[in-house]
Amino acid sequence: MSPNNAYQQLEKRFRRIHLLRSIGHLLRWDGEVMMPSGSSGIRAEQLSLLETESNSILRSRQTGVLLDRAETSAGTLDGWQQANLREMRRLWVHANAIPNRLVNAFHRATTEADMHWRRAVEQDDFRVLAPHLEKVIAVVREKGRFVGAALGCSAYDALLDEHDPGRTTADINRVFHELSSELPHLIAAILERQSAMSPVEPATPVAVARQKDLGRRVMKALGFPFHKGRLDESLHPFTEGTAEDIRITSRFDKDDFLTGFMGVLHETGHAMYDYGLPQAWATQPVGRDRGMAIHESQALFLEMMIGRSRSFMNFCAPMIARTFGTQGAGWSSGNLYRLATQVRRSLVRMDADEVTYPLHVILRCELEEELFSGVLEVRHLPQAWNDKMRLYIGVAPGGDSKGCLQDSHWPLGYFGYFSTYLMGIVIAAQLFSALQRDNPDVMRQIELGNFAPLFDWLDRSIYCQAAKLTTEQLLERATGEDANSAYFLAYVRAKYLTA
Amino acid sequence: MSPNNAYQQLEKRFRRIHLLRSIGHLLRWDGEVMMPSGSSGIRAEQLSLLETESNSILRSRQTGVLLDRAETSAGTLDGWQQANLREMRRLWVHANAIPNRLVNAFHRATTEADMHWRRAVEQDDFRVLAPHLEKVIAVVREKGRFVGAALGCSAYDALLDEHDPGRTTADINRVFHELSSELPHLIAAILERQSAMSPVEPATPVAVARQKDLGRRVMKALGFPFHKGRLDESLHPFTEGTAEDIRITSRFDKDDFLTGFMGVLHETGHAMYDYGLPQAWATQPVGRDRGMAIHESQALFLEMMIGRSRSFMNFCAPMIARTFGTQGAGWSSGNLYRLATQVRRSLVRMDADEVTYPLHVILRCELEEELFSGVLEVRHLPQAWNDKMRLYIGVAPGGDSKGCLQDSHWPLGYFGYFSTYLMGIVIAAQLFSALQRDNPDVMRQIELGNFAPLFDWLDRSIYCQAAKLTTEQLLERATGEDANSAYFLAYVRAKYLTA
Repeated sequence: MSPNNAYQQLEKRFRRIHLLRSIGHLLRWDGEVMMPSGSSGIRAEQLSLLETESNSILRSRQTGVLLDRAETSAGTLDGWQQANLREMRRLWVHANAIPNRLVNAFHRATTEADMHWRRAVEQDDFRVLAPHLEKVIAVVREKGRFVGAALGCSAYDALLDEHDPGRTTADINRVFHELSSELPHLIAAILERQSAMSPVEPATPVAVARQKDLGRRVMKALGFPFHKGRLDESLHPFTEGTAEDIRITSRFDKDDFLTGFMGVLHETGHAMYDYGLPQAWATQPVGRDRGMAIHESQALFLEMMIGRSRSFMNFCAPMIARTFGTQGAGWSSGNLYRLATQVRRSLVRMDADEVTYPLHVILRCELEEELFSGVLEVRHLPQAWNDKMRLYIGVAPGGDSKGCLQDSHWPLGYFGYFSTYLMGIVIAAQLFSALQRDNPDVMRQIELGNFAPLFDWLDRSIYCQAAKLTTEQLLERATGEDANSAYFLAYVRAKYLTA
Repeated sequence: MSPNNAYQQLEKRFRRIHLLRSIGHLLRWDGEVMMPSGSSGIRAEQLSLLETESNSILRSRQTGVLLDRAETSAGTLDGWQQANLREMRRLWVHANAIPNRLVNAFHRATTEADMHWRRAVEQDDFRVLAPHLEKVIAVVREKGRFVGAALGCSAYDALLDEHDPGRTTADINRVFHELSSELPHLIAAILERQSAMSPVEPATPVAVARQKDLGRRVMKALGFPFHKGRLDESLHPFTEGTAEDIRITSRFDKDDFLTGFMGVLHETGHAMYDYGLPQAWATQPVGRDRGMAIHESQALFLEMMIGRSRSFMNFCAPMIARTFGTQGAGWSSGNLYRLATQVRRSLVRMDADEVTYPLHVILRCELEEELFSGVLEVRHLPQAWNDKMRLYIGVAPGGDSKGCLQDSHWPLGYFGYFSTYLMGIVIAAQLFSALQRDNPDVMRQIELGNFAPLFDWLDRSIYCQAAKLTTEQLLERATGEDANSAYFLAYVRAKYLTA
């Protein structure tokens, strides 16, 4: 067998993994949007079968042998193939670093914890979750140690690498520091400024069916290809699928259309990235997104930088009025913009404005590191959470469900994930600055309803590269430098304190 | 390895096949109900992967070895296990009789023919399909020969056996003869009688949303467990799923609510059977339905014998009026009953009344046998179809799309399938007679909205046995004899010429 033959065989294996994953996407979408409540048992078994199946391809000895062979003469491969081989190896290392018993222990611990998390939320009592979260953390620590040994890095860096390849604790700590030292007094200044303005008109109630209709209209305007995707409703907004069939959801609140609308924009940002990835590599690891920080940057970019801009509001205010059949000062483009840019000391990350959002995330990342290292005991989490909320946001929850129980990430074993939200918004602001540098007319075009210049730039800068470059290389190519939080701070100052 | 150990290992393998099939069900449901139009490419690949995967378990040498071992001391197994082993072997024989190249040829030929069938329907021209249908028939013939050799029966009997285990050409020809010699003059007599009556009030238009609402209400009354199932809309009504998650659909026509309503009853009949199968055997071959003739009998039973009865119409007329907000003579129970029992010389099987329905099916079965044996050339099918329509139903289509192109069965390679519809209605009438013999009060209970006696009887007689008995044994146990078309003829005479 020639080395290139080995590479071809690997492509075939990863094509199969891609197909298995695409089925899993659909099953998860259905589980959240369509599935009858009593069918969760068989759904869990179906998902577990697909997971086991693709894991067994990834973890098979033969895949390792093929990787070794293909790498011995990687020189005969072209640039994309080499990058693909690198990504295959990366996935292989992550999957093979962990012994089988730990895979099972992780599955058991997170299934248990997820179940108790739901109960804990219902009962507004973290103590229902605490012992199960302890087990998850123990397993996650072990997982981090194994993967860290394989990658030659610390256990926590190994977790970061899974979701945001190449990212280190040092990187994120630097960004934390830059933002957490600046944002609190920026927020104070913004709040003072906003309270001095005339009061914002609150949005009046709008039937959910009309909100969905608006969502579909704005997605259409943005270029969402409805022949390969859908918009539906679920408890939490999400995006599932591959470029050949992407399903996004939002949640809709009769009394607050903006939540659902921003959810649609956020998820459309995710979806447009997935659609924009190069078709020729759709079934291969190199054809996927470059990690969750970049993915999140695309969602936050469309929701925050574009969706909460004056230009966008000027474009869509008439569409909103037409779709809702509303009129009056509350529905003016100016008032809608003010609604979308209200800064608030609020409790829930998912509802946070773009200025306080990073602090919500930093709080989680810091607590997560402390839980992981053992500095913070699980049972003290609610107290630590509330203390940090008071410190960073200036407000603390009455109960746990709007406090340390509000996200499912930790019970599900997602440690090292929250930082992708933070890097996501930092990257989004940096991309926004580069976009305007490269195309000064882009916001005026958006105001006219022409989104082609925006998506052409995103395509050239981000989408078309998929996972070919490292995140650092990708950002340098698009913006001239690696992730730099100064752009976010400058963006906030310009938008909230100068304009 | 002990023989019982071999049996246990087989159960494990078939549990995996069950899970893979259950994923396929969901993907097919989604494909018809939810999927964006442009996503059919990846969906076909996903389904093919699942099919290949479960086929490879069934066709693996190891499964054959385990079957041999388990059979050497089947005496140590209990009755259900023995029946399960018999069913496993049956599936194994069908799957292993065919060489790999033929599996692929079947897949290619039917995929091509299906595509051209859709075009042919659009263009109302059978010639678009003809050459592709010829290829399908050639492959199906070869398949029949291989399976026939393995089962020790004729090639066509081998095809019948796949969908209705144990059924032979001799069986169905006998039933054809009994029905096709009686029905045409029965139909003439019924039409004469109906034309002498006062005219039926046609149904007025009803919004589709209300029709769906009615569908859900009547399903609820029948006991459909909505926490494990759904009702949706699709081009053709169908049922997909396992007892843990069943999705049924109907099609809804604003101008003819009865079509959608009867579709709901038909599919609910399928679903109630699937739900009623014994839970302990849910993942095993013996826990499935006893072939498609029995399955179809359950659907036709609920749609025809129950749904198109005076008692049922008396029960649901007030529900219909309430749900639709309608009133007047057209919506009286009496007029609705007459609407549901109108006999018509019509062109389309799916819209046929219960009296002409068997002739629509017999026509297909006869033509199919002639196509299969080569007596009828494919290019002469439209003419042969129209001739037989005139002979049996007394009306012939203007074009092919309402003629020999109206079903997708043949392009998809489903030969030996149509007869299950015929046996289904014969069995349904026979069960209806036995039900009334065992429980003379059952229709009065239905009129009162009490469906428990009906479903208790079906559960005891059919559902609880799954595939443990042969079809013949199952029918003898429930009714005292094997399938007998005299019950259907007596049912028609009593309902349409006497009552």
